[in-house]
Amino acid sequence: MSDQFDLPSTDRRSLMAGAAAAAAGAFLAPGLAVAASADLAVIRKAAEADKADAIKRLQEWIALPTVAAEGMNVVEGPAYMAKIAKEAGFQTAEIIPTDGVSGVFATLDVGAPRWIGVYFMYDVKQYDPKEWSSPPLEGRLVEKAPFGTVMMGRGATNSKGGQIALLNALRAMRAAGKKPPVNIALICEGEEEIASPHFRQIATHPKVLPVLQKCEGIYVPGPSQDRTTGEVSFTLGAKGPVELQLIVDGSKTGIGPKTDIHSSEKARIDSPIWRLVQALATLTSPDGNTPTLDGFMDKVRPLSAREKELIAQLAQKTNEAALKQAYGNKAWIDNLSYEKSIERLLSQPTINLQGLVGGYTGPGGKSILPSRAEAKLEIRMVPNQTYDDTVRQLREHLDKRGFQDVQINVSGGYDPTETAEDARVVQAALGAYKKMGIPVTLSPRSAGSWPGSLFTQPPVAKPAIHFGVGFGSGAHAPDEFIVIDSANPKVAGYVDATMAQAQFLYALAEMK
Amino acid sequence: MSDQFDLPSTDRRSLMAGAAAAAAGAFLAPGLAVAASADLAVIRKAAEADKADAIKRLQEWIALPTVAAEGMNVVEGPAYMAKIAKEAGFQTAEIIPTDGVSGVFATLDVGAPRWIGVYFMYDVKQYDPKEWSSPPLEGRLVEKAPFGTVMMGRGATNSKGGQIALLNALRAMRAAGKKPPVNIALICEGEEEIASPHFRQIATHPKVLPVLQKCEGIYVPGPSQDRTTGEVSFTLGAKGPVELQLIVDGSKTGIGPKTDIHSSEKARIDSPIWRLVQALATLTSPDGNTPTLDGFMDKVRPLSAREKELIAQLAQKTNEAALKQAYGNKAWIDNLSYEKSIERLLSQPTINLQGLVGGYTGPGGKSILPSRAEAKLEIRMVPNQTYDDTVRQLREHLDKRGFQDVQINVSGGYDPTETAEDARVVQAALGAYKKMGIPVTLSPRSAGSWPGSLFTQPPVAKPAIHFGVGFGSGAHAPDEFIVIDSANPKVAGYVDATMAQAQFLYALAEMK
Repeated sequence: MSDQFDLPSTDRRSLMAGAAAAAAGAFLAPGLAVAASADLAVIRKAAEADKADAIKRLQEWIALPTVAAEGMNVVEGPAYMAKIAKEAGFQTAEIIPTDGVSGVFATLDVGAPRWIGVYFMYDVKQYDPKEWSSPPLEGRLVEKAPFGTVMMGRGATNSKGGQIALLNALRAMRAAGKKPPVNIALICEGEEEIASPHFRQIATHPKVLPVLQKCEGIYVPGPSQDRTTGEVSFTLGAKGPVELQLIVDGSKTGIGPKTDIHSSEKARIDSPIWRLVQALATLTSPDGNTPTLDGFMDKVRPLSAREKELIAQLAQKTNEAALKQAYGNKAWIDNLSYEKSIERLLSQPTINLQGLVGGYTGPGGKSILPSRAEAKLEIRMVPNQTYDDTVRQLREHLDKRGFQDVQINVSGGYDPTETAEDARVVQAALGAYKKMGIPVTLSPRSAGSWPGSLFTQPPVAKPAIHFGVGFGSGAHAPDEFIVIDSANPKVAGYVDATMAQAQFLYALAEMK
Repeated sequence: MSDQFDLPSTDRRSLMAGAAAAAAGAFLAPGLAVAASADLAVIRKAAEADKADAIKRLQEWIALPTVAAEGMNVVEGPAYMAKIAKEAGFQTAEIIPTDGVSGVFATLDVGAPRWIGVYFMYDVKQYDPKEWSSPPLEGRLVEKAPFGTVMMGRGATNSKGGQIALLNALRAMRAAGKKPPVNIALICEGEEEIASPHFRQIATHPKVLPVLQKCEGIYVPGPSQDRTTGEVSFTLGAKGPVELQLIVDGSKTGIGPKTDIHSSEKARIDSPIWRLVQALATLTSPDGNTPTLDGFMDKVRPLSAREKELIAQLAQKTNEAALKQAYGNKAWIDNLSYEKSIERLLSQPTINLQGLVGGYTGPGGKSILPSRAEAKLEIRMVPNQTYDDTVRQLREHLDKRGFQDVQINVSGGYDPTETAEDARVVQAALGAYKKMGIPVTLSPRSAGSWPGSLFTQPPVAKPAIHFGVGFGSGAHAPDEFIVIDSANPKVAGYVDATMAQAQFLYALAEMK
């Protein structure tokens, strides 16, 4: 999740934890067991030999975008996901149907004593080619200072880049004649970008759940180093989202006109678009920053002393000026200090307006009274808020104020997720990083979201964390990219990122 | 302005006054002078002979839409306007440059003792062909129950239909060997649909102003009968609009991000789109119906007893059930009675939201924090509110609440307009209608707008009113149409509408 402290688009909904190894030289650090080091040396040779093909594979995957919101490639996506899992060595790769887009579940059982779960999302965020400097589905290699050679394309960093790196690591092991040191359960979904409305069906599927329950934990691989220092932050949790649309439609309610009419009638006919604006305005403080939804803030858990301590470290290790320059904001909310801005980022729930659309949207004006308007929102929750509470509170809040005609369309969401710092897999992973000499900052929470609560809550009830080195940026934004050849020795290129994935699997096997 | 009490789209910004003659049989009513009746008989023959060509001319004009908001045909429009004025017999037709779209000023001086001014807008409202059942620029003749044969096309009723009818009347006079009974000053603009931002430059142009000052008054020709009863309402004034956009753009202000960023950052970065929503919400009561803009309601003049009397008559003569069915609204604001709804319509200023656009507007959601949002509004003012007061009040209101970053782009507007019921041209016109046996309802005001205040206020300072028979609907909406052959004997077809224009000019000449 270092990308939250990074340049302009903090990345994917599930802002990924930075982890693993930093600069190229660190990947064979002396702390690891001799056997692992010897294995890793031959695996690295295989990964280096595979580099050109690895780039092609990432480009091919970028060329097949699954966009659940638009129904794009919702059949082709899981089929391709299953195919590349099998090609990387998974013995089984099964498509798991849901009430929405299918998931994929794959297993690689090498008879190792330990299972680890890996979570992939194979969907990507919408994109508009007009906004891109390089075609979003091409995965073109371009020089981008100060990063080096990067691959630009939708999904490059969010999340195909890190995922292909893990699959490449498994391929390199096979090419080097090495078995993976752990068994792997790979669980994939194609609706993460619409807030995972059916992920529960996948995680609790009869073929999936028993395997997940055997795992030490579940992790998400991804490139998450700080762009300058190479510092990775290791993230213990994430906010939970409710993604929804508020719609006011006179043709459905009879409050307001059924079609757009001449605007002079506003003097005696209700306006759906005004009803939406006034309903929205009740949801936040006048500055738009603090949720005022009835009951919503009641269960927000304040930061602990330990969490504040971790945040103070994060503030020290990341660059406020670079962030502000990238975002273009003159100040943080309420003129907060950088450290306090991070406290707010990680501890406070939000009600965000993703978009507004209604009536005339072209140049200038048009004197109509529109019949329909829509707001696209997402609410991000922190512990101990829940999805169920929030959905109920929203309806009750609007009804209480007479906004029964405001339709709520909840299109996705899940609870916040947390993994305790003292979980064995967390401590083992931290230990491994320390031995490898990789700088790590522990972060109490990501401000983004991923459906980790489906793993951390019953019936799976396992730790769920974020890993990965390398660097990418531009998730949800134009010109998304991932670094292929790094110009900064502290930041891993794509072969190093691949090796970090291998190295982490060895570290997991070594775990006490 | 009967169309305000009519089906779904009350028409153009300058909702036109119904007037002139009703059914075909009434156009040679016995009350007129013998000379006029004899002239009108031969003129009618000429108009009937011209019918097929008249239809083609209207179709040709519909095929050339000027849309100021989109910069469409802003050069071709005035050129064509000048051409058809000359073809109809105007001796001069000059293009009047402005800081925006040029206007046209034409004169037809037949040496008559009296001058009358006529106002044309040659621009039309935006249109989306996808929403139309017939191509909007084709002017196709279609059967439309219960009206008869109608011409469907953008501008058919707003306002090319009535205008071509007047030009046709002048052509028919010439074909019949008759001089027009009055001199005509024709003043045209191409920005009425964007609230006439430069019309003052036309009305006060050194070549225009002296001629307008010679006129008895200025009128707007247009089809405005009630769709069932044929009753015309004769309108004495109109609201004045301020058309504007409220824009919040983080890239301009540094409050919020400069581009769309990951929505998780909402926890510590201001949202331009929330700032817009919260700023908007301060402008009306929570139901969206009553302006709460500081100082805005202070000068609103209550209805007089006479105005309430006229409104009671309007309520009697128009059909509430048909209106509600057409609009699809279950009730008027605050469950008002129909009569009270008309009082509110004509007496109350409004703040209307024409449209909202910002961030992601496609299907479902997209987890971004958008950098920019825009609301399109128009404020409609009543006497004694003014454009200048309103623009100043809006800025002060927003500034007082800390919304200095909300940019106001005023794109057009002017004061409300009023002509006294006892003005000579009004009384003469009412007398002429009475003699012709045409049912007339006097309306104190249109809820729509037209830039009549540029005529009624100094330096022109003349009465300005609305006339016309025939029927059309769909202004600002898809499937706009005007009746060509009427299936209802109480509603005029296009030849009768042409004749009503001729007859009104004769009535003006007879005026005492």
